Amino acid sequence: MIKSTVAALLAENAKLQDVEVKGWVRTFRANRFLALNDGSTLNNIQCVIDFEQFDEALLKRITTGAAVHIKGALVESQGKGQRVEIQVSFLNILGDSDPETYPIQPKKHSFEFLRENAHLRTRTNTFSAVMRLRSTLSFAIHKYFNENGFYHMHTPIITGSDAEGAGEMFRVSVLDAKNPPLNDEGKVDFKEDFFGKETNLTVSGQLEAETYAMSLGKVYTFGPTFRAENSNTSRHLAEFWMIEPEVAFMDLAGNMDLAEDFMKYVLKYILEHNAEDLQFLEQRLLEEEKTKPQEERSELSLIEKLKFVIDNNFKRVTYTEAIDILRDSKPNKKKQFKYVINDWGADLQSEHERFLVEKHFKCPVILFDYPANIKAFYMRLNEDGKTVRAMDILFPGIGEIVGGSQREERLEVLKEKMAALNIPEEELWWYLDLRKYGTAVHSGFGLGFERLVMFVTGMTNIRDVIPYPRTPQNAEF
Amino acid sequence: MIKSTVAALLAENAKLQDVEVKGWVRTFRANRFLALNDGSTLNNIQCVIDFEQFDEALLKRITTGAAVHIKGALVESQGKGQRVEIQVSFLNILGDSDPETYPIQPKKHSFEFLRENAHLRTRTNTFSAVMRLRSTLSFAIHKYFNENGFYHMHTPIITGSDAEGAGEMFRVSVLDAKNPPLNDEGKVDFKEDFFGKETNLTVSGQLEAETYAMSLGKVYTFGPTFRAENSNTSRHLAEFWMIEPEVAFMDLAGNMDLAEDFMKYVLKYILEHNAEDLQFLEQRLLEEEKTKPQEERSELSLIEKLKFVIDNNFKRVTYTEAIDILRDSKPNKKKQFKYVINDWGADLQSEHERFLVEKHFKCPVILFDYPANIKAFYMRLNEDGKTVRAMDILFPGIGEIVGGSQREERLEVLKEKMAALNIPEEELWWYLDLRKYGTAVHSGFGLGFERLVMFVTGMTNIRDVIPYPRTPQNAEF
Repeated sequence: MIKSTVAALLAENAKLQDVEVKGWVRTFRANRFLALNDGSTLNNIQCVIDFEQFDEALLKRITTGAAVHIKGALVESQGKGQRVEIQVSFLNILGDSDPETYPIQPKKHSFEFLRENAHLRTRTNTFSAVMRLRSTLSFAIHKYFNENGFYHMHTPIITGSDAEGAGEMFRVSVLDAKNPPLNDEGKVDFKEDFFGKETNLTVSGQLEAETYAMSLGKVYTFGPTFRAENSNTSRHLAEFWMIEPEVAFMDLAGNMDLAEDFMKYVLKYILEHNAEDLQFLEQRLLEEEKTKPQEERSELSLIEKLKFVIDNNFKRVTYTEAIDILRDSKPNKKKQFKYVINDWGADLQSEHERFLVEKHFKCPVILFDYPANIKAFYMRLNEDGKTVRAMDILFPGIGEIVGGSQREERLEVLKEKMAALNIPEEELWWYLDLRKYGTAVHSGFGLGFERLVMFVTGMTNIRDVIPYPRTPQNAEF
Repeated sequence: MIKSTVAALLAENAKLQDVEVKGWVRTFRANRFLALNDGSTLNNIQCVIDFEQFDEALLKRITTGAAVHIKGALVESQGKGQRVEIQVSFLNILGDSDPETYPIQPKKHSFEFLRENAHLRTRTNTFSAVMRLRSTLSFAIHKYFNENGFYHMHTPIITGSDAEGAGEMFRVSVLDAKNPPLNDEGKVDFKEDFFGKETNLTVSGQLEAETYAMSLGKVYTFGPTFRAENSNTSRHLAEFWMIEPEVAFMDLAGNMDLAEDFMKYVLKYILEHNAEDLQFLEQRLLEEEKTKPQEERSELSLIEKLKFVIDNNFKRVTYTEAIDILRDSKPNKKKQFKYVINDWGADLQSEHERFLVEKHFKCPVILFDYPANIKAFYMRLNEDGKTVRAMDILFPGIGEIVGGSQREERLEVLKEKMAALNIPEEELWWYLDLRKYGTAVHSGFGLGFERLVMFVTGMTNIRDVIPYPRTPQNAEF
């Protein structure tokens, strides 16, 4: 008897023999057909029970969600819909599931309801598919960087500096919350705190990643980052995962090459490894879209959208060209954009990014050379003195998915920019050291992992692509 | 001309041709031999400069730490110590490094000094080897789980519960640090905080990992965890990375099999992939040990220690047997142990664990079935009513490296244990749900990643195996 997983039993090369499997009941119909799932695949294996051979009390306990242990013969299926099935000879209930109270019944549940039961939602097809894809994507990312000579680096989560200014931060402290110690000036005395200074949760590992790129050459981070912004939208999380490669001796053009190659690699990888999960989610989306008016439906199906990225060259366009295109575009002239584009210097919104990708160029787009004053201090200033070597990659349906830049490698220019933004040099002495000792051109980018999972799964609320989302007023589980 | 990395140029199959490479100067001697490193390997490539062909001002700028761009012919080396070298035809200084102020000179620096310059310490052989090994270990871990049907799961970093009681926690807040809002009872009103309740940094992802194991079957986490303990030792960090697999339908024996197979796999993987780094660190250790008295030196070299784990079966011993062995042991009778073992129920210290591994069994040891009252509430109670299905894996030189258990799957027993420890059921309603709906035997373990990196690299201070250590009074960089 072979102890097996459902995935192995359903595999094309599975031997027809006596088998043993454990899993959870998805459905049980006609007192005969038990659909068993163990998480190893989207699909269930049909277990056929001859009810005359089993005790009635036992059969009553075969309810949705119950954990069961099954032995029997794997045989060719007589019925439609499956190649093989198990003729059950032994059945044991490992854990019951009371059908009166079990939340995950075999019917359609709203995503809102499932978010409240996030500890059980991977017992549904949709969320098990999403989380399997999330896992495969994560592995594909590590594999890509490993194959291309990058070192994985764990940048710190708790940081002592608010230098990057990427957004509101969470304070990390062990001081008494009500009566913190005060210093002579009457301010909270963070010298008494665990780290001897005020500390926060990181917003990015980039600056630390630069330190390692400037010795190890090619590195990447893949860790949690945080924003304490009170934005309760379907696109924002307070805690999310970010991938940040950083490469010495690489300029912005190399950065674009890397990002394009990387994105295509991971998308190809999941097409090859998670076809069933993708097909299921594609079908789910198609059915969801049937309820929408024609003009709101996507032009591309889920898998077509992935292939659209894989098969097309990413079009490289300067910010300045993009502004010209947008200013002259029909939706701009007809004021169909919520934010009408008038002048050079405007920050682009998702509607503009999607117009460029979906309507104008009809391919993924890399915008680059942005105005300096809408981008971060560490980006390399161009010779024109007003743009920086920044790039954003825009995808269909989602807009910006990657943001990166060539970093300012010139000590004096960097100091000037920091001074203009009142960033004290003492805060970033180590970052400046990289420009003092053996400085060189270097570049990198950041990819919000959950944005990628949304793109790949077609889920439209970011809360549905991370196991336990952290958002304003919500840190359940 | 081929743009290359130092690793590729030093590879056995490297073609002798015109090449181009960028990197940092490690040393420059006799105005002729430039040792170049770019992080792609421990080794430097020798670049031979005919000083008569280059400007003297340029040659003066070839200093340790400077970034350079080199072109030339890759040729067989005339000298000893290297197979190939570059005959330099073009040299450009990308970034100078002032020898008067550059901290990383080609001489021995203390680890304390390098910790203060952690942003530059990977420019030394020791730390670049350590961090390359850390990266390879990280990849090997993902690869092992991926090949064995596990899903990678990102458990939350910010948590709303202090249920596990694994130690002191860091509070995460956006409330005004000095004047937080108070509620009617005069306590800090965390309802006003970002998440609407008091939140902390996670101490473990295990409980959440269990939720996914009970639907997806086999999962693992690999994320940062935190302890706000004021212990300033060479073995503790406030922020460290942990690997936690969790598997449905797996009992404690299966858990031991998994942990042993896993540890052997990752150690084999680094022996195969990072031989040069390991050899370098082994040599470093040998030289360091020469300064120690004979009795303090290790019996095994670094690589021998890794092979000791790979080649030996892990001996499985109950806690009760171990106590008997320790009680009757020579160091116990002679009171050479700092903590003398008298009675069943004693918590084992590192000295006892190392005695069992290094002196008594002479192989890695798995201790199991520990007294319930020295272990966590979620561990499965044995039929004897006083021990739990816990296991610790003990390694030479380091003691405990893995801790795991079979989890209590019985609702009523779990509730009783929680009640005895005053853990409110409302806090862990979702954890209890796993026992209400389709419960089953399941198990998992935790591996502190930095402990593993210490074991593999032979570094004796945990601050030296993570890029930017977080310890009491220290959150620099």
